Amino acid sequence: MIVERITSSQNQRVKDWKKLSTKKGRQKQGQYLLDGWHLVQEVVKAGQPIETLIGTSDELQRHADIVAQVADVVEVTPEIMHQVMGTVTPQGIAAIVDLPVTAVTTVPTQGKWLLLDRVQDPGNLGTMVRTADAAGFAGVIAGTGTTDYFSPKVVRSMQGSQFHLQLLTGDLATIIPALQANQIPVYGSELNPEAISYQAIPKTDSLAIVMGNEGQGMAADLLQLTTKNVYIPMPGQAESLNVAVSAGILMFSVVE
Amino acid sequence: MIVERITSSQNQRVKDWKKLSTKKGRQKQGQYLLDGWHLVQEVVKAGQPIETLIGTSDELQRHADIVAQVADVVEVTPEIMHQVMGTVTPQGIAAIVDLPVTAVTTVPTQGKWLLLDRVQDPGNLGTMVRTADAAGFAGVIAGTGTTDYFSPKVVRSMQGSQFHLQLLTGDLATIIPALQANQIPVYGSELNPEAISYQAIPKTDSLAIVMGNEGQGMAADLLQLTTKNVYIPMPGQAESLNVAVSAGILMFSVVE
Repeated sequence: MIVERITSSQNQRVKDWKKLSTKKGRQKQGQYLLDGWHLVQEVVKAGQPIETLIGTSDELQRHADIVAQVADVVEVTPEIMHQVMGTVTPQGIAAIVDLPVTAVTTVPTQGKWLLLDRVQDPGNLGTMVRTADAAGFAGVIAGTGTTDYFSPKVVRSMQGSQFHLQLLTGDLATIIPALQANQIPVYGSELNPEAISYQAIPKTDSLAIVMGNEGQGMAADLLQLTTKNVYIPMPGQAESLNVAVSAGILMFSVVE
Repeated sequence: MIVERITSSQNQRVKDWKKLSTKKGRQKQGQYLLDGWHLVQEVVKAGQPIETLIGTSDELQRHADIVAQVADVVEVTPEIMHQVMGTVTPQGIAAIVDLPVTAVTTVPTQGKWLLLDRVQDPGNLGTMVRTADAAGFAGVIAGTGTTDYFSPKVVRSMQGSQFHLQLLTGDLATIIPALQANQIPVYGSELNPEAISYQAIPKTDSLAIVMGNEGQGMAADLLQLTTKNVYIPMPGQAESLNVAVSAGILMFSVVE
């Protein structure tokens, strides 16, 4: 139910919400923002609690069913919505939810995993999480130096997939050997025609695929640790593929 | 060689260059902008003339070999470069080249073609052109309502692939039957598990794949015209894939 109406952007809560656009702000408050009804519905469907629901009068009236389920609902002006979301066209509704713990504590013993080595672009990260979800992967492990999962741009491109698979972070130089010790083969990706073609990856229930940085690819020391390194043969003239497209081709090639 | 030095953003040439960021400006002047050395080198490699090379003093000195090949070289201040390119970090060098004619005059009789029905996002369009190039496609045909090939964002994501394959535009409702009349099968894509799996597309030298709008997919009337419609089976929970990722999976599935 609506517990508060805020019309001033000088309100302390508005100032706190704005800080959720930075990694520091998210970590300090332990929360992140979901923009728009699609994501609000995804969090409800996932059975995860909404800490605060923020909306314009119009939008809150339109979805009374969700409003009724949330203890802390705040009505704001469209101007405040715009300031908090930082997008050109905010949808007039947003949810604040708890930031999940992502640090790897136990290394996976089964399932398909996407590992990311220093991926920089938020759109690429979000698209890869969404694609991993579609391909039935168990989760994504972002190595040190990969952009944050919960920035507004990543959250927008994940389209709710963070509620369907595990998002972990950790040191890939430690995790790759640990996965292998758990009988999970780890396939690195590289732009090297001397690597084996990705079509040679056996379709097994458990495996890991590593994608590298947009400009530099995977770090050389990680390429040394993998079970095998694969490349995507390209008959055309382009020098490389976008990393999210490559990840899509690799992940769907191992769908049974 | 350097024929002019411009330090004022009020200069008429600077005003004309800025207009190249809009479709109207590009069509009126019949030219578009390539930002950065990678793209400038691609146009040189393609043997296509550079109408004007614009650069800061530092960048022009660094690449005297290319400067020597261009008749119209203009040195500008970093501020003007910034204003013309509209990017946060322009690379200090840009080329103006002729806008190619893209209207389909003769319908293709062979090769692999990517057809696009009302694709809206410039990043998606550019990434699909780059992926089509990598997959050895002969070209891309953008249907009516698809975003323009030569906007700065699309040009950035194409990464020079426009010099490697044909970029055409036309009315897909006319072009699809014409391709079929030329013995080229046309595969539509849809989010419909009753369609056949994309893995059933035969790997032939000549074929066309149609991708649809980001939100709505392919138009119903176009789905009626295709040889067959395919979908990508998704074992996970995501409702859909990004269109550029889907296009990558489909195009690489028909690489021999």
